[in-house]
Amino acid sequence: MVSFELREFQERIQRTKRRMIEQGIDVLLITDPANMNYISGYDGWSFYVDQMVVLIIDEEQPLWIGRKMDANGAKATTWLYHENIIPYSDDYVHSSTKHPMDFVAEILVQIGQGNRTIGVEMGAYYFTALAYERLKQGLPNAKWKDATLLINHVRIIKSPQEIEYIRKAAKIVEKAMKKGIEAIAEGVRECDVVAEIYQKLISGTPEFGGDYPAIVPMLPSGENTSTPHLTWTDKKYRNKDMVIIELAGCYKRYHAPLARTVSIGPPSEQMKDLSKVVVEGLNNALDFVKPGVTCEEVEEVWRNTISKYGIIKDSRIGYSMGLNYPPDWGEHTASIRNGDKTVLKPNMTFHMIPGIWYDDHGVEISESFLVTDKGCEVLADFPRELITTQNLMVVGNMETGTIPHGEIS
Amino acid sequence: MVSFELREFQERIQRTKRRMIEQGIDVLLITDPANMNYISGYDGWSFYVDQMVVLIIDEEQPLWIGRKMDANGAKATTWLYHENIIPYSDDYVHSSTKHPMDFVAEILVQIGQGNRTIGVEMGAYYFTALAYERLKQGLPNAKWKDATLLINHVRIIKSPQEIEYIRKAAKIVEKAMKKGIEAIAEGVRECDVVAEIYQKLISGTPEFGGDYPAIVPMLPSGENTSTPHLTWTDKKYRNKDMVIIELAGCYKRYHAPLARTVSIGPPSEQMKDLSKVVVEGLNNALDFVKPGVTCEEVEEVWRNTISKYGIIKDSRIGYSMGLNYPPDWGEHTASIRNGDKTVLKPNMTFHMIPGIWYDDHGVEISESFLVTDKGCEVLADFPRELITTQNLMVVGNMETGTIPHGEIS
Repeated sequence: MVSFELREFQERIQRTKRRMIEQGIDVLLITDPANMNYISGYDGWSFYVDQMVVLIIDEEQPLWIGRKMDANGAKATTWLYHENIIPYSDDYVHSSTKHPMDFVAEILVQIGQGNRTIGVEMGAYYFTALAYERLKQGLPNAKWKDATLLINHVRIIKSPQEIEYIRKAAKIVEKAMKKGIEAIAEGVRECDVVAEIYQKLISGTPEFGGDYPAIVPMLPSGENTSTPHLTWTDKKYRNKDMVIIELAGCYKRYHAPLARTVSIGPPSEQMKDLSKVVVEGLNNALDFVKPGVTCEEVEEVWRNTISKYGIIKDSRIGYSMGLNYPPDWGEHTASIRNGDKTVLKPNMTFHMIPGIWYDDHGVEISESFLVTDKGCEVLADFPRELITTQNLMVVGNMETGTIPHGEIS
Repeated sequence: MVSFELREFQERIQRTKRRMIEQGIDVLLITDPANMNYISGYDGWSFYVDQMVVLIIDEEQPLWIGRKMDANGAKATTWLYHENIIPYSDDYVHSSTKHPMDFVAEILVQIGQGNRTIGVEMGAYYFTALAYERLKQGLPNAKWKDATLLINHVRIIKSPQEIEYIRKAAKIVEKAMKKGIEAIAEGVRECDVVAEIYQKLISGTPEFGGDYPAIVPMLPSGENTSTPHLTWTDKKYRNKDMVIIELAGCYKRYHAPLARTVSIGPPSEQMKDLSKVVVEGLNNALDFVKPGVTCEEVEEVWRNTISKYGIIKDSRIGYSMGLNYPPDWGEHTASIRNGDKTVLKPNMTFHMIPGIWYDDHGVEISESFLVTDKGCEVLADFPRELITTQNLMVVGNMETGTIPHGEIS
């Protein structure tokens, strides 16, 4: 069940160890689930309990430490020797007295790592303030360094195998987006549209199945297009509603996000104009992408394009993405925004999502792209425009029996 | 869009403040998304950035502090005055220099809270070690107390409105479980079964739609029944595979989990016997539940039942559940296990999930239940037994065109 060849894991470890040496870290405690997967292959929905992969500078193989119930999953999904899978007993789980990091500290002392310089991912989602306190208590002689994003920066350049997975995710997102747009129509409930989208995201294609995306599909509509992170309700769409669809296909934990804006019935002139600005800015920014330019230069192209129309937008327009787990598919390294001087290199992958929101309406049209040797390759093949559902063919849907179909114009 | 009456939020705040006083906390920084929702109503997929609700002991209304892009969502979903919605600008997001907690610290100083005793949820998923360090730097004169689970313990008794939401979640889980079992058959891909389950989880019922569950459906099969937290693949089911389905219906973020074990074709005698033991243990434990008994006494009934058959199991068999966000629907308060002396009270809700796993096979059969005045009420109405799909009617499925149907025996 391991998703990459052993050689690829070994290369990842070499690149990680180089950074550990630069930063003076002897022992790296990897708690970000994506980073655990990247180094060991471990893939399970067990990040709601404390767990980690331990990378020691002078040891060839990392250790996996986690809940006993998940040790078989670690044996199945990682390339590690089974003796390097170290389980803690269930009485450490959600206990008011014991903490899994007490166990981790004991293990590290036992194997002679208690006096070393230990790197921890201070800013990673599942590395809680309490976990750090308990580690420090259990390892009073260790020196501590913040290793947040150390591996995320290694992850920013994708391998051919990773790119293949992201391309598969892009095939899935095309199908899910198409299905979602077809399902949207006046009188249809938001939840029924998302249900159709999920069906496609998970079933994938006849050749390969889909994985769960790290973020649920977002479909703000009507006035809620100004609240981009509220999730769906069971409200029915009305004629003239605008719907923003943002979602990602996922394959073996690799993502390809995509956003489109949909008008139910003919859009207003205002929305048409706003969409044209977004598409022009997106096109110009994508055309500008090539190895050697910086993230902030890409953002500047976008900003200059929209400022011609008197529009000013102050948030970032994209980010590096790929392998991830909930709650985010972004990698938290490079952002396409003012001030980010990351130099683009071949085989980086980004989601460029230049939304413009006003208090009562908004437009998002996005693309995921791969930086190539000379420019960029847009990953999903989907019309890059404001989409209008012609709300004419309200007939019974052969597939579900409940949802009337619109058509993509 | 607020899901509860103002009076209910006010009662929750009163009960929380009572605990703050007991623990000597003046200012509570609430970062657990479920606790944020419980106190303010806030509901958005924005917990991938730092955000919080601030409850001050001598102020009537809490504050919401979060990303500017999410402030409209906070206005839409909370009962707070709009001036209590305090946004930080986008350059704090995933920045290598600025941190949202720097902003929070500045606000707390500005409003005169910088010298007080501040409670933080040290063990909550999205309260990172880095967030705590930055807060301490920004508030050098504050005293700090660990307030992990303070609100979770308030949440353990559900209100009538919360129980109504959990009952709706139970209706959804019945439909999704039935659909999943019907879809399982020899030659069907795991991902296609999960796709059908998701379709039902999200579309819900004609009367009300479904929300995203805090954990994805888990369907380990074959040898993988011993790896309970691996997620699905695109592998095809084989005849005689055992499949464990664990999932939850969700309505307005309230959950009703349910697990069943399915045999594709006639099960082995060994599995039939193991299932009977699990069901007998589950039945006995459910029969024993009533106000006044403790969690560990419930577990003891289970343990005594299975030990008659020579089976010993060392992990917990259940936990309090209800309102939640990824990565877990459990509340992390009461666990049904040895050593947990929580006394059961009316209107608590639990998921009792007594699985037994061996190295190469396992059985899980679970129920979610509500503690009533005299006993308990099982929330979902679903056959409590090992389920056999009669793998006979492999015909085209009118609904999807691809998935053959089994039948529930």
